[in-house]
Amino acid sequence: MKTSPVSNGSGASPSNGSAGEVQDRFKHLYSRGSLVDQPTAIRDICALVARPEIRSLAGGWPDPDVFPIEETAALFAELMAKNGAQVLQYGPTEGLPELRLALAERMAEEGMSGVGPNNIFLTHGSAQGMQLAVQLLVDQGDVIMVGLPTYFGGTGAIMAGGGHPVGVPVDRDGMNTDALAEELERLTSNGERVKGIYVVPNFQNPMGTTLSPERRKRLVELARQYDLIVIEDDPYHDLIFEGEHLPPLKAIDQEDRVIHLRSISKTYAPGLRLGWTVAEPGIIGRMALAKQYMDATTNSPAQFLFLEYLRRGYLDRRIALNIEHYRAKRDFMLDCLERYFPKGVSWSHPRGGFFIFVTLGPDQDAAQLLARAVENKVAFVLGRAFYVDQGGANTFRLSYSQASQEDMEAALKTLGELLS
Amino acid sequence: MKTSPVSNGSGASPSNGSAGEVQDRFKHLYSRGSLVDQPTAIRDICALVARPEIRSLAGGWPDPDVFPIEETAALFAELMAKNGAQVLQYGPTEGLPELRLALAERMAEEGMSGVGPNNIFLTHGSAQGMQLAVQLLVDQGDVIMVGLPTYFGGTGAIMAGGGHPVGVPVDRDGMNTDALAEELERLTSNGERVKGIYVVPNFQNPMGTTLSPERRKRLVELARQYDLIVIEDDPYHDLIFEGEHLPPLKAIDQEDRVIHLRSISKTYAPGLRLGWTVAEPGIIGRMALAKQYMDATTNSPAQFLFLEYLRRGYLDRRIALNIEHYRAKRDFMLDCLERYFPKGVSWSHPRGGFFIFVTLGPDQDAAQLLARAVENKVAFVLGRAFYVDQGGANTFRLSYSQASQEDMEAALKTLGELLS
Repeated sequence: MKTSPVSNGSGASPSNGSAGEVQDRFKHLYSRGSLVDQPTAIRDICALVARPEIRSLAGGWPDPDVFPIEETAALFAELMAKNGAQVLQYGPTEGLPELRLALAERMAEEGMSGVGPNNIFLTHGSAQGMQLAVQLLVDQGDVIMVGLPTYFGGTGAIMAGGGHPVGVPVDRDGMNTDALAEELERLTSNGERVKGIYVVPNFQNPMGTTLSPERRKRLVELARQYDLIVIEDDPYHDLIFEGEHLPPLKAIDQEDRVIHLRSISKTYAPGLRLGWTVAEPGIIGRMALAKQYMDATTNSPAQFLFLEYLRRGYLDRRIALNIEHYRAKRDFMLDCLERYFPKGVSWSHPRGGFFIFVTLGPDQDAAQLLARAVENKVAFVLGRAFYVDQGGANTFRLSYSQASQEDMEAALKTLGELLS
Repeated sequence: MKTSPVSNGSGASPSNGSAGEVQDRFKHLYSRGSLVDQPTAIRDICALVARPEIRSLAGGWPDPDVFPIEETAALFAELMAKNGAQVLQYGPTEGLPELRLALAERMAEEGMSGVGPNNIFLTHGSAQGMQLAVQLLVDQGDVIMVGLPTYFGGTGAIMAGGGHPVGVPVDRDGMNTDALAEELERLTSNGERVKGIYVVPNFQNPMGTTLSPERRKRLVELARQYDLIVIEDDPYHDLIFEGEHLPPLKAIDQEDRVIHLRSISKTYAPGLRLGWTVAEPGIIGRMALAKQYMDATTNSPAQFLFLEYLRRGYLDRRIALNIEHYRAKRDFMLDCLERYFPKGVSWSHPRGGFFIFVTLGPDQDAAQLLARAVENKVAFVLGRAFYVDQGGANTFRLSYSQASQEDMEAALKTLGELLS
């Protein structure tokens, strides 16, 4: 999987309507890394979502209905009038000092004791934090432990960086830490260079499950025992529908082994492309050095907007609104599933986030279902896109984040009929 | 140079006031690539510029006096009112389709015949285009030819990607293509894997020189002969003070071997972090695939703002204003140099861009001058930051982009006295 050459041009994205095969005319000059065969799940989703006649439960983009459009327009006008020269100028590679300070305070309130501005690093979306973390840790063939299933953006970044993601089962309590311990023992005994663990602890994409308190402790303990870095990817953190927040791995860890990744995409606006990393200052320094030659610094308007958003309490108000909005959508989808899906099919009951994961009978094939669903103008994402071991043939992911109630109900009714 | 480990923590940026050594506690887990010893010229400049008492001719940031603050605020308000949901949403990895089309048309008008939207790729500043081009081409140890001197952001990206930049002298007509031909012959005879040529054709940073028409043709011909990709980094393209534009390498090349990099940082606003790449569609497709796992997509507000900026003709009007502004600053700096610098010191006369390059007598040391200059509260950038062969000891770079006339005159008077 890791280094097999791509047989033909990856070409332009299907999402922009430029069809047709594009030849890799200069393939003989490309680096080995750029020829790594990548899963194209994101592009496949984009292609499905882009077809207007499709009722899509595939894409996991936030719902523009909750974007704070007027608020952001007013805030930007104010910022430009007061401080336009700085808003349009380059800033420091690590991010605006005031924003690093504000985020450090917020992270400390979430239980990450001792976190200061030097532990905070602003990135162009949390995806960039992930990419920089991989670049920091991974030499060709180094192992990063991942969930089966887990977010393909995470495993994609690992593979793009030359790393080897090794899977550990995820169940309703998140990544199985007993299985993780066994696998770590086996790999290190075999002399493999294991560098880290990639985990989405809250309302995981795609399963919607949350890592239990016991497993959080165990995972951090295993990182210590096997001398590993933990990449804690937590974009859905604030979108919690019920109960209390569990402590972040970053708050449990006493050895600064956790790189904690956050995003404004699900609580404010994804188009601003802003995320932040919380980590030990030496790690932040290295990531910043790499970012300097990557894109110099993160766009300034997004940072100034988010700083004001935090200072004025808009973020917390917005989080409360978004929780209400997405909780209602989750409830509606769960109701539809109860109503339309036949016996023998099961699904997760997420306490937050955007996704519900469906498991068919052991002999059923989700790919066959998808083919028939698309004929009937309904789309979802195959579970196997999230399994680095090519498993999950009888699973698929549904997203309630974007679809209207009408589309959701019609789509799930169709799927239910196809399954019966 | 390429793989020597860093002896101590690079730590946090000096630009944010977090002094002190930061330990690399997890260095034993870092990838080889992340331990590459990088020139810290950018950080050194930031540190100098940040000291308020310093009259700095060091930084090459654009002058905020010419940022279109009110225009941008009004445009953003309009865009948000009309189309806020899209402005705050994710967009396609390659960039907004309408913007790709508008830029394709503009590039065709600049002589790049046959360029369409599939040849255009929006990036988070042109720096990201450079980084993705390096990632596309470079395996550990692959050679990219560069100017002596040339922009350290370019050579930094090459080294960060594991590449080996090999230098060729630059004179007042740009990169010496006879020397380039000799060096290419020598390297390929030795079995080195040479992948490309990195060149800043117009008003080069740091020398301010422009590649002559004859050398442009020769450079493209050498790329064909030795089967190379040309990375044409052209951020100063539009800031031309006199005479006609010379044809871009991308327009001369008939084999699609040129990756042409552009930026809005010097003509609109650097804080928006927006650049674009013009290249063969197969190359664009590969770069987009890599970007997908890097930061998903470039921030949407910058793209929507720039699209309107182009459509309404604001960009061309702004370019004309910026040319006038920076030409006056260049003229003023040249006058000061004539007035205050002693005989035996020479300097370049750029036809555009931000920089003048000073050459002292062959035995003079610019580093000694800098030490004394900083004592006298004046700063510039040592030429040797731009030489991958550690040359240029008797050279330094002056920037007229940011300093006021008052500061410029006082600083150059001081330097002149120190030199006499």
